[in-house]
Amino acid sequence: MNISILGATGSIGRQTVEVAKNLGIKVNALAAGSDYEALAEMAKILQPSLVALYDENAALLLKQRLKDMGLPDIRIEAGMDGVLQCATFPETEIVVNAIVGSIGLRPTLAAISAKKDVALANKETLVAGGVLVMEAARENGVSIRPTDSEHSAIWQCLQGGEKGLSERTKRLILTASGGAFRTWDKSDIEKAKAADALRHPNWTMGPKITIDCATMMNKGLEYIEAYWLFDMPYKKIDILVHPQSVIHSMVAFEDGAVMAQLAAPDMGQPIQYALTAPDRPPRPHQSLDFLSAASLTFEAPDLQKFPCLALAMEAGKIGGTMPAMMNAANEQLVAAYLKDEIRFYDISRLIEAAMASYTVKPVKCLADVEEAEAWAGEFCDRNI
Amino acid sequence: MNISILGATGSIGRQTVEVAKNLGIKVNALAAGSDYEALAEMAKILQPSLVALYDENAALLLKQRLKDMGLPDIRIEAGMDGVLQCATFPETEIVVNAIVGSIGLRPTLAAISAKKDVALANKETLVAGGVLVMEAARENGVSIRPTDSEHSAIWQCLQGGEKGLSERTKRLILTASGGAFRTWDKSDIEKAKAADALRHPNWTMGPKITIDCATMMNKGLEYIEAYWLFDMPYKKIDILVHPQSVIHSMVAFEDGAVMAQLAAPDMGQPIQYALTAPDRPPRPHQSLDFLSAASLTFEAPDLQKFPCLALAMEAGKIGGTMPAMMNAANEQLVAAYLKDEIRFYDISRLIEAAMASYTVKPVKCLADVEEAEAWAGEFCDRNI
Repeated sequence: MNISILGATGSIGRQTVEVAKNLGIKVNALAAGSDYEALAEMAKILQPSLVALYDENAALLLKQRLKDMGLPDIRIEAGMDGVLQCATFPETEIVVNAIVGSIGLRPTLAAISAKKDVALANKETLVAGGVLVMEAARENGVSIRPTDSEHSAIWQCLQGGEKGLSERTKRLILTASGGAFRTWDKSDIEKAKAADALRHPNWTMGPKITIDCATMMNKGLEYIEAYWLFDMPYKKIDILVHPQSVIHSMVAFEDGAVMAQLAAPDMGQPIQYALTAPDRPPRPHQSLDFLSAASLTFEAPDLQKFPCLALAMEAGKIGGTMPAMMNAANEQLVAAYLKDEIRFYDISRLIEAAMASYTVKPVKCLADVEEAEAWAGEFCDRNI
Repeated sequence: MNISILGATGSIGRQTVEVAKNLGIKVNALAAGSDYEALAEMAKILQPSLVALYDENAALLLKQRLKDMGLPDIRIEAGMDGVLQCATFPETEIVVNAIVGSIGLRPTLAAISAKKDVALANKETLVAGGVLVMEAARENGVSIRPTDSEHSAIWQCLQGGEKGLSERTKRLILTASGGAFRTWDKSDIEKAKAADALRHPNWTMGPKITIDCATMMNKGLEYIEAYWLFDMPYKKIDILVHPQSVIHSMVAFEDGAVMAQLAAPDMGQPIQYALTAPDRPPRPHQSLDFLSAASLTFEAPDLQKFPCLALAMEAGKIGGTMPAMMNAANEQLVAAYLKDEIRFYDISRLIEAAMASYTVKPVKCLADVEEAEAWAGEFCDRNI
């Protein structure tokens, strides 16, 4: 198998490299943002044909570095165009998109147009442009392979029969850890700094998604992602807080059975499954230990304490450009919160204000998404 | 679809009738032990072509009853021969074997020889004659469909890929409620009457299996059943006590994922799955409510308090005629316990004594099984 990895130097990208090495998968192309040092190290090990950095200055530094390392034959590209070349690399069969944020949408669409299957860890792609992605996938006959742990869990639960069991699904049950502030009082959350929000109870992940977990926006984005990935009406998607993060999600079927996928918190499993499904070749992993594990508990999400979740669910149901606008606003607000420029509840307050004054449009092309994102950017610039 | 139901008037048999009615499945033949009144009522509703009672006197009463009910055209047969005619009824595609005890082995083998798939709720069939059943199924190209809730759960977890995921299985995890005496002290269990043992915490089932749950022999029988059904070495089969009986069993795979099947305690689901797998058509059912459910907990089985489990596991590993002998001894001892003729720990004590003095042989034909069972019968007669 031949793959390209977009967002290669991030948390998911690095774990994809480990999976590829373990399975003996050839990595043709690697794209990242600006971390030329990490990308050079990866290139040394994987010997890809093509590497690209979104940041053009970093690409120049990468060029020098690869020359110094005695790897002058690897082609180097820069900018969005370079990322798109990785996404459409001729020999690549599956593109793993592990870019963070809706900037991953164009590479996803490019990969689909080039008839590549896409292992999609970039949930913002579907939140911003779900209709474009799923339509393009249908037209080009390619599959979008869920790579978020929750959506991979649902995909694993849907196995059975030639085409899977979507039509027999009663409810999708997305589980949520509840994030860093699940047990905090609202008044304490109000004062919480980014450093507090970055202490996720179960998973080690990048900073943007960890803040999204603390606000529960992450689960809202996954709610919209599930809608697109599994072609499921919102009224059939439940969100269930499960603080132990042992059950990664479940599917309740029309016959009364509920299938659940459980695992240690390790993205290697969903990443590998995206590449090998429905097969499950061996990989080194930590086994779940049921005897020493805490009891598994469940609770309803608290929409008062975590208004971002309610807002995302509402944006999903409104549809059109609303999720793209909301997601772009969230990206900018999370970046501001990470720099301590705004307070925790400013994120939801400003998203709510943005949604209230925004006029939604249908998504007919990429420009509609970009326009919605630009509107969100201006709104946030004015209000932060 | 056309089916026969053996053991039709028992708990599983009645639930099979409900499933068949809901799916519009034609029931051609019904066999039961001696309950002619219940069988007559079923015949009135289902209008089968053939009914049979193992008890020949009861069959005479059934004949009269059906005549009185204006159903003189239904063919009536009696004895083991009658049960075998139901098992091999020409139009039948799937035989649901819900007979209790190893007396179900001959009908299972007859159904397989007649090229019928078998939905097997009769676990003693596999404990006593697993090698005969599985070899015959291979030779005749028929499938043995797990219908115990735990084995159905495992089967559901193994879906994926054309032939399922057996070869990717790291461990089968059979869950156990722990039975009526899980939280009792050994000294109290020692004095417990059958009436106490019949109070199963989660399931409503027939008396024999409920006593087997209290001794945990049931899980030992299921351990052997799993070995045969899934062609899995014993060292890959775990037993995990899960008192809430929400997770019905799990499979841990080589890629680190654990798939679990959950449901309300309702045999209708595994029965229907045995008839429709891998499809899951709708059926009326009670949904699992995660918000009001207790936390899910796990513990190791206590082999000191429940020696029958250890004995069954040992018998399975010894193999040959040992499981058949042990199972037959258990059947007779449970019947004696239900009549308060022996005490709770006499069951395990006498099974242990029987296993210690028994000389195991390979199982080459049905006569080997019957000889082992006869030996167990004599041993129990001498020692009860």
